[in-house]
Amino acid sequence: MKARVYVMLKSGVLDPQGEAVRHALATLGFDGVEGVRQGKVIELELTETDATRAEASVTEMCEKLLANTVIESYRVEIAQ
Amino acid sequence: MKARVYVMLKSGVLDPQGEAVRHALATLGFDGVEGVRQGKVIELELTETDATRAEASVTEMCEKLLANTVIESYRVEIAQ
Repeated sequence: MKARVYVMLKSGVLDPQGEAVRHALATLGFDGVEGVRQGKVIELELTETDATRAEASVTEMCEKLLANTVIESYRVEIAQ
Repeated sequence: MKARVYVMLKSGVLDPQGEAVRHALATLGFDGVEGVRQGKVIELELTETDATRAEASVTEMCEKLLANTVIESYRVEIAQ
């Protein structure tokens, strides 16, 4: 079973990486970019076959390792 | 208009970051994880209002900056 986790900085948290990308895009002539936010997407190949249990364990992985829940929010997607 | 870009390493390209995450998860006791691939998700706030033109310019941004097309593939999503 495949799971996908999207980890983004919470709104209001400064995103220096996103700012750097926005600045670089402007330098390359892309001026219609008002804001850039960059996060992580993590694809997990799981041996678990039950979707509910898979979601529960991936959520636990996020809480313990994949996301810094103080400044980041995460979303778990289970793909059959 | 909002656009989202997903950048992942092409299959076959070694993902040391993903390996490190898999190893760390195993150390934390998550043993049902066979593989981990990590990539970037970039959210762009665009002044463009036409979806087709927005997709074209974001694709150009990917080709020029956001993705290293030698080892990475990207997917562009335009959100109204």
